[in-house]
Amino acid sequence: MRRFAKKDFPVSEIRRFLEPGPIVLVSSAWKERTNIMTMGWHTVMEFAPSLIGCMISGSNHSFDLIRKSRECVINVPTVDLAPTVVDIGNCSGSDVDKFAKFCLTPAPAAKVKAPLIAECFAGFECRLADARLVERYNFFVFEVVKAHVAPAPRYPKTIHYRGDGLFMLSGRTTARWRKRFKPHML
Amino acid sequence: MRRFAKKDFPVSEIRRFLEPGPIVLVSSAWKERTNIMTMGWHTVMEFAPSLIGCMISGSNHSFDLIRKSRECVINVPTVDLAPTVVDIGNCSGSDVDKFAKFCLTPAPAAKVKAPLIAECFAGFECRLADARLVERYNFFVFEVVKAHVAPAPRYPKTIHYRGDGLFMLSGRTTARWRKRFKPHML
Repeated sequence: MRRFAKKDFPVSEIRRFLEPGPIVLVSSAWKERTNIMTMGWHTVMEFAPSLIGCMISGSNHSFDLIRKSRECVINVPTVDLAPTVVDIGNCSGSDVDKFAKFCLTPAPAAKVKAPLIAECFAGFECRLADARLVERYNFFVFEVVKAHVAPAPRYPKTIHYRGDGLFMLSGRTTARWRKRFKPHML
Repeated sequence: MRRFAKKDFPVSEIRRFLEPGPIVLVSSAWKERTNIMTMGWHTVMEFAPSLIGCMISGSNHSFDLIRKSRECVINVPTVDLAPTVVDIGNCSGSDVDKFAKFCLTPAPAAKVKAPLIAECFAGFECRLADARLVERYNFFVFEVVKAHVAPAPRYPKTIHYRGDGLFMLSGRTTARWRKRFKPHML
């Protein structure tokens, strides 16, 4: 599978890739263990600091790794990885090493111990910023402390989950309505 | 503009329309005033009760209406409404009646006082479920208490914001990978 060479990207602008709502792969590490989970329930929460809120169910093996390490990487896969994304969601990291099983390449992050996934076009290094809603909702607020994005293609085709086994694929990106925006509302 | 006749839809299945990450229009009402705001920062949080988390900035006129009424409707627009969606985000409800200004039709909701927007293909009636992160992040947790969705088209073309005046349009919906899912992971 294709590996993406990534460049530094401004953390305050990661909405470019997350706000449209793609399925992401969350990688985590704790002591000698790593894991990957599929996640569709996330939202941008702030530009600076760059905050992302997301749901990580307590039934996931990743939940423990992330709660203990207080870190993760949010990776954005392209449509080519769709079968792998589904298979990752089908099994538990308590049974298998998902990097090995799915032939994914862990790449070192700069500021967290969780690895990036080389086969994803973007990776956002995250530190836990607020755990107040974890107990009640499994809702984590992360600060993105470093962002890596492949320079090309500019807007890769992403997959967006609808439930019931259905994916919406991303369509084209357009600046058609850009001039309607008031500059401070961009 | 086209108005959509909607039917009842199971509140536990609204991820079908929100999880892919579209821009939505949030309508609200308090005493004699109504308002509409454009929102891109939201996430599904639970199936039952049906919970949605979202960011509503304190600088929005809608913030006050929603905090006081503890209710809103999350409406999902199609690409035809894109210019209106932008214009709604460009102005404040403290200055204008947005339903009147943008020729949108308020339709009565069943369980909340905020109106649905007839020109949107889906409307989700919401009650505030948790305000604990409102003060710190402007993050509201809503319970969807009733859902209305137009039966056709099944998956209308939605708009997904990237920031910087750029919209991603939704592409096709596919069941291509459905049989890979373990049944309990659908």
